[in-house]
Formats: sequence, C-alpha cells, structure tokens
Amino acid sequence: MEINAVDIKFETEIKDKINQKTKPVGSLGQIEDIALQLASIQSNKAGKLISNITINKPVAIIFAGEHGISEEGISIAPSCVTRQMVQTFLTGNAAINCFCTANNIDLKIVDAGIVEPITKDYPNLINMRLGAGTKNFVNESAMTDEQVELGLSYGEQVVTPIIENGTNLLIFGEMGIGNTSSATAITSRLIFADVDLCVGVGTGITAEQLFKKKSLIEKALKRFSSNAPLTVLKEVGGFEIVEMTGAILAAAKAGVSILVDGFIVSTAALLACRINNNVRDYLIFAHESDEFGHQLLLAHLKAKPLLNLGLRLGEGTGAAIALPLLKSAAAFYNNMASFEDAGVTI
Amino acid sequence: MEINAVDIKFETEIKDKINQKTKPVGSLGQIEDIALQLASIQSNKAGKLISNITINKPVAIIFAGEHGISEEGISIAPSCVTRQMVQTFLTGNAAINCFCTANNIDLKIVDAGIVEPITKDYPNLINMRLGAGTKNFVNESAMTDEQVELGLSYGEQVVTPIIENGTNLLIFGEMGIGNTSSATAITSRLIFADVDLCVGVGTGITAEQLFKKKSLIEKALKRFSSNAPLTVLKEVGGFEIVEMTGAILAAAKAGVSILVDGFIVSTAALLACRINNNVRDYLIFAHESDEFGHQLLLAHLKAKPLLNLGLRLGEGTGAAIALPLLKSAAAFYNNMASFEDAGVTI
Repeated sequence: MEINAVDIKFETEIKDKINQKTKPVGSLGQIEDIALQLASIQSNKAGKLISNITINKPVAIIFAGEHGISEEGISIAPSCVTRQMVQTFLTGNAAINCFCTANNIDLKIVDAGIVEPITKDYPNLINMRLGAGTKNFVNESAMTDEQVELGLSYGEQVVTPIIENGTNLLIFGEMGIGNTSSATAITSRLIFADVDLCVGVGTGITAEQLFKKKSLIEKALKRFSSNAPLTVLKEVGGFEIVEMTGAILAAAKAGVSILVDGFIVSTAALLACRINNNVRDYLIFAHESDEFGHQLLLAHLKAKPLLNLGLRLGEGTGAAIALPLLKSAAAFYNNMASFEDAGVTI
Repeated sequence: MEINAVDIKFETEIKDKINQKTKPVGSLGQIEDIALQLASIQSNKAGKLISNITINKPVAIIFAGEHGISEEGISIAPSCVTRQMVQTFLTGNAAINCFCTANNIDLKIVDAGIVEPITKDYPNLINMRLGAGTKNFVNESAMTDEQVELGLSYGEQVVTPIIENGTNLLIFGEMGIGNTSSATAITSRLIFADVDLCVGVGTGITAEQLFKKKSLIEKALKRFSSNAPLTVLKEVGGFEIVEMTGAILAAAKAGVSILVDGFIVSTAALLACRINNNVRDYLIFAHESDEFGHQLLLAHLKAKPLLNLGLRLGEGTGAAIALPLLKSAAAFYNNMASFEDAGVTI
C-alpha cells in the first residue's frame, strides 16, 4: 500500500512559522507539537504549505469484536457484554456517546464480529463481520489467513466513504471483552518484551485472574515464533484489531490525521506501522493507559500522548476527550499573532 | 470571610450516582473526579443534589502586574513586555485569545499595576491598579500593607459583577515578567521548602540567570521570618498575585468553581487556602508546570492537574485549553446511562 511519509521540507517551514508566534520558542509544549504535526500532514496532502489547519467533520469509529479467550474467565465481564455495549452505543448513552456529543464528533459503530449480530438497522451501525468471535487463541490461531486479509480490507471499506465525505481526522476506539489479552500478546511479540512486563489488569481484574491471563498469553506465544504483523494478527489478534489496522492504513494512505485512543487501538497502530512505517507520521496519541504494555508500546513508537487521566474504559473515550486539544492547537497555529504583527520587542 | 466547605453528604450521594453509570467503577479516572467536584460544588450552592452540572458563561480573567525584581535581569524579557502583552491581549491574538475563542471562553484583562497604564478604553480591560509595579523585593517589601488589603478587595471587585452576571466557573491567568521569582519565594516560604528546590527557569532563562535568581530570592526571604499569608504577599508578592488571591477567595465565597492555571496562579490559590482552607474545595488544577516548585505546591495541596503538556507561558493558557475536559466531565455526569437504564448485566 502506498503511504506517503510527511515531507520534512514542510516541517521546517511550519516550525519557522510557529517560532515566529508572540511567545518564547517552545513555550506551548505539546500544543506546538500537535500543530506542527497537523499542519505537516495537511500541507503534505495539499502539496504546499497550508496557512490554516482544518479539522473537518471528525468521526469516531468504534470497532467491536468478541474474543474466544474470554471463555477463560480472565476478564472483568462475560463476552456477551460486548454486544450489550454495542447496543448501548447505538441507542443509549454510553461514555463515548456523551463525549462525542460534547465535542461535536460523529460516531460510527462497526460490528467486526460479535457473536450474535445486531439484527435491527441503525444509521450509524456498519456491518463488517468477520465471524462470530475469534477462536480462543491459547490453543489455536485466533483467525484464518482469509479473515486477516478480509479484515484489513473491511477496515479500508469502513473509512473510505467517511473520508470521501470530507472527514480529515479520524478517531479510532474499540469494544471487545478480552481484548487487552490480545493487545498484550501482540505488543509482547512485536516489541520483544516479556509478557510479564506487558500484561495488566485491563478494566480491573483480580490478582488471580491476572496471573492466569499472563500464563495463557505466554502459552499462546509459544505456539508460533514469527513476528510478522499479519501472522501475529492471525495467531493472537482480534477482529476489531485487524479491522482497525486496515482502517489506519487506509486513513494514512488518504492523508488523514489519526487520533489513537488507548492500549488496544495503539496495538493496531503498531501493527499498521510494521506493515508500512510511514503510517507513524499520521498518528496522534490521545491517552496513556495505566497498562505498562501500553507505555512500552508508546516508547517504542516515540509517542507522548496528550492525556494521562487514568482512563481504562476504551470505547475511544480518551481520544474523544482529547479532540478539543487538537482544536486549540489549530487555533494557535491559525490565529496567533507573530512578533511582527504584535510589535512586541522580546 | 465566610466560605463554605463542600458538604460531604453531597459527595457521597454524587459518588453513588457516578458509580451507577454503565462502566466499571473508576474507569473514567480523573474525569470522574472532576464530575464529582463540580457536582459537589454546585449541589452545595443549591442546597440539594443537582441532577445536571452546568458550566455557565466561563470567563478567563488575566491579572497583569509588573515586578520590581525584574530590574535584576533574571527574566527572559524586560519588564515592559508585560505591558506589550497586555496590549496584545486587548487588541491582538496572543495565545490566550486564540484558546479562549476556540473554547468559547470570555476574556477579561485586569491591570493590577503595570508601570505605564493603558490609557485607551477597552471593553474587556478592568483597571484595578495598585501602583506602577511592585518594589524590588530583594531589599525591601514588594508592597505596603495597604496595597495588600486593597489588592484583596480589588480582586473581589473584579469577580463580583462577573459572577452576578451568571458565570459559575472562573479561569484565572496572569502576565508579569518576573513573577516566577515572586511565586518561587511565596511557595518556598509557605510550604517550608528550600528555594533551591522551588526555583526554576520560568519561561526560559540561562543557568547563570537561574543561579542569580535563586540567590536573590534567598536573600529576600532572609529579610523576614513570618509565613503569614498577608505578610508573605506584602514582602515578596506581586500585584497580580494579591488580586488573584482576593479573586479566588471571593469566587469560593460565591460557590463558583475555579480553574487554576500554572505555577503563578497556584501560588495565589495556596495563599487563598492559607487565609481560608475551605477554598481548596473549589479549586480545579488545570496544568502541571515543569517548575519543580509548582509540583511541590501541588503535592502540598493534594492536587493532580488535568494536563501536563510542557506549557510554560502563563496567561491562563493551560486552563483555557483544559476547559473542554470539564465539559466532557459534565456531559458524562449529566447524560451517561446507568446500568439500570441500559440493561447491561455486568
């Protein structure tokens, strides 16, 4: 897949422009970094230096899938809660609905493979089912090669019409009971870190469950030795993770900025970078999870997320909460006076 | 001054309400803490449990003052830049203007005592001048007892009409070349920490300037031994700091939530707490500065700010950027479904 790296020449020009603003150089910290990244992505796409950052029709896409490994009882809730939460996203007021409404974000829900499909039509439900949940990856591959391939394609099919509709910033989130196990296995294998270091309590399991979770992930990783992203996805991935990986690749290809939520979405981002490293230029990390695996993954990608609020819910909540910071960064880049404008002598 | 502590009975009821939301207990981290605090403050004022948090007409008030100590050359810019920046706040697009516009915050600028007054009228300029800059506090008191008293009163006079106009959340920010020296001296004395620990590079001075800054602050603190807040203000305070202290006290008295920016505003908040400890219940800390003095001060007040973005500009920028997080917290409290609403079985 052809994905353009952001041209360094734009970064230099944009940095100059930012350094002319009426403030000591660098004194707006990460807000400047975000402005630089957004302006670079958008200039690269335009093929010339843009004068204004735009954030057009931001959309949050929540990918949901069920996980065979959830039968092991190493999650806070039974697998069927995934479907119940999808139903709540569609009709009710889950956390992500509240945050999207508060921050003017459109919300789409993708059924990437929950066990029992939603039969009713909803305008914001997208059916991209890869099956009725993955296999329990402890003893066998989570999915087939065909499912991996189809999942990447489905991810692209989800984002393409949204981008064609004018969206230039996408938020990715997820729902899937058991998916921190998958994220932990993927991270451990891709960054060569022990499971022991990467594993955590997810949304909140007991010490006994944590020990079992660690042992099962270690057992799963002994089944195969490859660290090729597609193989890792097949062996220990999840339907929502493979589709997010495809969606992230497609978004980067289209020159769209990507706001990454927590641990699970970050593993999809890491997989996408392993498939094509130019993806990294398009990734903005919203939230740092308390899961140490996430922190290791972020260090690996040289990423410093915007927020660290102790969130451990998923659903894209960290990213939805972080979006206004991007708007502030755009306002800074677009509207702040230069020293020349302001007549300040510093 | 009579300031009501927030009644613990409301906190308990609100915590129960939050814990019934469709998510594992505590999984929205600090967003839950902020919702709890805002709902507690507003319930306390209403005298009954409120069903919805409101954020009415948020106003950012930037207090500006000049500092005699700036003649020592221990700042990044000459003192006159304070006035130039005030002029930019009034007519141009400084960082705070951009962030206030982006986040729908009304902006007021208070001249607490810059050297040369702004002679033209501006609708958002409030004149509360305590003098033409403080004295250089290295060798003499920064201000008089009368100025301290008047400054506290002026701060109250600034916020009272704004609160009467329906504002229930105030953001405080500041501008004053040299004011990290004042903040460092105040913090060092009030929390009994060595100057060496509290001093930092402010907006960005050299190592040589930093050494001189430390020595001068140590010299100033040797002039007096009291740690009474009004004495500390008189000896090493700033006009903007004393007025912010008065404004914070008045806001807390009126039951208004207070969003505190960085190090300088936090010293005013600490002084206000020393005058009346019930103020603490009304303080929300927006941003953690890289100045170690700020981190010590925050620990002293058991405060964990919402953001840590490497900002070192002041002006209220950290608080203005953080406001949308409060709106997300309100949306969560007001709109998120309970387990009973959603039929989720977890």
